[in-house]
Amino acid sequence: MSLQPVLIAGKWLEAKNTTGTFNMTNPATKSKLPESYPVSTKEEVHEALEAGKKAADELRTFSPEKIAEFLELFAKKIEEHTEELVNAANLETALPKEPRLRSGELPRTANQLRLAAEAARDRSWCMAVLDTKTNIHSKFGALGAPVVVMGPNNFPFAFNSAAGGDFAAAIAAGNPVIAKANTSHCRTTKIFAEAAFNAVNETGLPPATVQLIYRTSPDVGFMLVSHPLVGATGFTGGRQSGLKLKKAADKAGKPIYLEMSSVNPVFILPGALTERLQDIATELYGSCSLGAGQFCTNPGFVVIQRDEKSEAFINSLGKIFRENKPGILLSSSGPQNIVDAIKVLKKAGAEIVVGGKEANEAGYAFSNTVLRVSAENFLKNPRDLQTEAFGTVSLIVVAESIEQMAEVANNLEGNLTGSLYTSTKGDDDSDYSKIENVLRLKVGRLLNDKMPTGVAVVPSMNHGGPFPATGHPGFTAVGIPRSMLRFAALHCYDNVRPHRLPEELQDKNPTGKMWRMIDGQWSQGNVGI
Amino acid sequence: MSLQPVLIAGKWLEAKNTTGTFNMTNPATKSKLPESYPVSTKEEVHEALEAGKKAADELRTFSPEKIAEFLELFAKKIEEHTEELVNAANLETALPKEPRLRSGELPRTANQLRLAAEAARDRSWCMAVLDTKTNIHSKFGALGAPVVVMGPNNFPFAFNSAAGGDFAAAIAAGNPVIAKANTSHCRTTKIFAEAAFNAVNETGLPPATVQLIYRTSPDVGFMLVSHPLVGATGFTGGRQSGLKLKKAADKAGKPIYLEMSSVNPVFILPGALTERLQDIATELYGSCSLGAGQFCTNPGFVVIQRDEKSEAFINSLGKIFRENKPGILLSSSGPQNIVDAIKVLKKAGAEIVVGGKEANEAGYAFSNTVLRVSAENFLKNPRDLQTEAFGTVSLIVVAESIEQMAEVANNLEGNLTGSLYTSTKGDDDSDYSKIENVLRLKVGRLLNDKMPTGVAVVPSMNHGGPFPATGHPGFTAVGIPRSMLRFAALHCYDNVRPHRLPEELQDKNPTGKMWRMIDGQWSQGNVGI
Repeated sequence: MSLQPVLIAGKWLEAKNTTGTFNMTNPATKSKLPESYPVSTKEEVHEALEAGKKAADELRTFSPEKIAEFLELFAKKIEEHTEELVNAANLETALPKEPRLRSGELPRTANQLRLAAEAARDRSWCMAVLDTKTNIHSKFGALGAPVVVMGPNNFPFAFNSAAGGDFAAAIAAGNPVIAKANTSHCRTTKIFAEAAFNAVNETGLPPATVQLIYRTSPDVGFMLVSHPLVGATGFTGGRQSGLKLKKAADKAGKPIYLEMSSVNPVFILPGALTERLQDIATELYGSCSLGAGQFCTNPGFVVIQRDEKSEAFINSLGKIFRENKPGILLSSSGPQNIVDAIKVLKKAGAEIVVGGKEANEAGYAFSNTVLRVSAENFLKNPRDLQTEAFGTVSLIVVAESIEQMAEVANNLEGNLTGSLYTSTKGDDDSDYSKIENVLRLKVGRLLNDKMPTGVAVVPSMNHGGPFPATGHPGFTAVGIPRSMLRFAALHCYDNVRPHRLPEELQDKNPTGKMWRMIDGQWSQGNVGI
Repeated sequence: MSLQPVLIAGKWLEAKNTTGTFNMTNPATKSKLPESYPVSTKEEVHEALEAGKKAADELRTFSPEKIAEFLELFAKKIEEHTEELVNAANLETALPKEPRLRSGELPRTANQLRLAAEAARDRSWCMAVLDTKTNIHSKFGALGAPVVVMGPNNFPFAFNSAAGGDFAAAIAAGNPVIAKANTSHCRTTKIFAEAAFNAVNETGLPPATVQLIYRTSPDVGFMLVSHPLVGATGFTGGRQSGLKLKKAADKAGKPIYLEMSSVNPVFILPGALTERLQDIATELYGSCSLGAGQFCTNPGFVVIQRDEKSEAFINSLGKIFRENKPGILLSSSGPQNIVDAIKVLKKAGAEIVVGGKEANEAGYAFSNTVLRVSAENFLKNPRDLQTEAFGTVSLIVVAESIEQMAEVANNLEGNLTGSLYTSTKGDDDSDYSKIENVLRLKVGRLLNDKMPTGVAVVPSMNHGGPFPATGHPGFTAVGIPRSMLRFAALHCYDNVRPHRLPEELQDKNPTGKMWRMIDGQWSQGNVGI
């Protein structure tokens, strides 16, 4: 099948100057998929940036209502293309059609776009602050430059570069998007980009509001995220690539929001284990095996205290992991990365409880794996023993005391999440505080008696955390409207005449219900009323 | 006079292992001041970090009320030490005692601390978001690690490392501060640190809540801002040092907020010049000469359109600049930096209208200077022609048309401010839009018919802007409570049992008037009421 076109400056273009092409592989059969995709040249990326900047300038003149219409129309089109999308994503990622793709991720993706539309229309996201005495007002506004979105391999819909959370947040904040497809699901991404582009045209937004490329050389990627014409970048993926892109963007002073690796520690306090050992083991396996363990919030690191229940828990967990068939991994690098990670963990002192080997399946797979290590050993080499194994793999750290559990927490890197399991009877209350005090500062989202997978799209969500889980502890990739603030700049207006102010800062509330901070009070009213 | 002590871990220590010492110079007389100050070693800085981390952990257990008490007591002590502070700062910076230091900057500094106290007590700054249906809540919380503050030379009080805006914001957000004094006003900073430390002790905060060092080698400085124990850094100063610190902090994933150079463009539209040429020239000189031109928001770049009024304006401006005596610069590097900057500007095609030479004064001084260049020339070398000359120096760019003025705006780097002067009769309305569209994206604060100096400490202020004016376009260094968010992390609580939540996220409003976003509505009430 022929080389697939890129979408640049409002046109589907046969890549003319590609520096190479690539095909994908069906991870369930290890067979090559027919379509070829181009590796974009520097010139092509530059063209996208120029067109994106023009679109950004135009987009700032459109009403939020128009942007909301686009997002809603796009959501509708996604639903209309459900079967095509589910089939493509299943072929490219081997994620199950049901319930995962059709009933889970696709509705979530459409919902995110609708929530973003609602936030754009509502306008409260921009945090307008009016100071009537000094006539100084401020609000967050669009960057006025294209946002680059580089999505991950593990959520072909909900985090897709051309339809997922970063895309929705960037557009709702008023910026065009240059989507760089994740190279493991290009067909899926192209279907999204087609639907988005049609919605762009039908709504009358600037044609380059959505652009699509599939791959670049690393150098061209660095050029992209650090280019003077770029507004910001949203990246979700592995730490190695993330840090390289961060370095390039940081040097140029371009904001880049990264969601990188995380082992998502789960601390199970003694009272919880005494009370419901079997339930917790089942929950842990359920969470750890979601998406064949390829979730950013996968619980890959469990800390327990050695007592009469701890060995029973490890045995019970091992049994569940052993008895269940491993899922299919997203690509050929999936099993290899786990092999490499387990090598590091073992070298640092971890022992295999169950699994530890590539699974003998038609598709890419790795046996469900439990490892263990003493807290004493962990504390000798905390860095290596936090190596992420992206699959159904969990390392159990066995501590001698609550104090040692806290010490383990104190040696953790920044993580997206951290969980604390406790007795329902309050037995663990003082132990909870000891761990929470330390864990709170190490994670973005702290959970209690709950596994970390399942990231609700609610305004209070934080899908973020301290470095190296992300690049900045103050931003979230999930949760509208807060995620939009990543793609906005703080704009202050000092002594600007009333008719020259943006609507959001004029006396009259532009929607009649937008929330604004007027002279220190949050209000949905007009100034003076 | 003997070597001055540093304040580390709650003790004033004679620096034992200093890697060197330095003395300051009185810029008004060019004579050496008697006190010597130590250059801190790596070990000493490490000690401060360890103590700061311990203090941070303790500080998180204190009520906001206690932190507010400290800030208010500190403000009171500053007022009690007015004469000592004014004398020290005048000696070290040559800034006038009246009105600048005693009636302007000192009351502002005390006021900032009181506003920070109010914000801490009020708690609304933390942006609590409660989602009662999912039991997921979030808010901003202290970093739980010391904040490094490196203040600038030009505001010995209001931006002082141990008393200024960054200090106030970091403490109010619940973090201890490691102040690195600006080496041009160490005695002033030491007086602040003494007052702060006494207030710490009297309030009962952890002794290492405030620490003070004066200078480090560059390498130790990089270690400080990138250290695992550091929470974040607030830096105000020159671009060269700022970028080096940024590189070190970025690599380690440590937030650093930088306020660097800015030429603060002023666009004067033809209608305004026709209407009030002389007034604008006077205003411009007034703003440009404040603090001998050493303001971050100094208007160093003026764009006008060539017409019958433009030469008259340049002549008028030149006359005012020539007739006024230059102020005393902050240090010996002051005149040298201006000489270097003017060399770059001239080489790139700018011509001297008036001034351009070191002034023959007892203190460090440079003659008030106006330069001019055509917009055509500017557009050939926009980078060099935006070189900041930190003094009473302004470059007039003469454009042929409004379109060319917009093109000049389009070639600007990120700036803290941008001003637009317009006719009061509405003659410039369409021209205003043409420039504003471009300028809006280049600056943090957009002004209309107002000069950029004078940064009101109000919640709507943005003393920030796109790179390289700062390191991130979403944060402000002035304006409480927003400036506090730089020194906080987003903390989400998922399924956490009610009694384990921080007070700000429990059902009951902890102050009875704190603003919280409950299920999509800003409210001062309790959950369910």
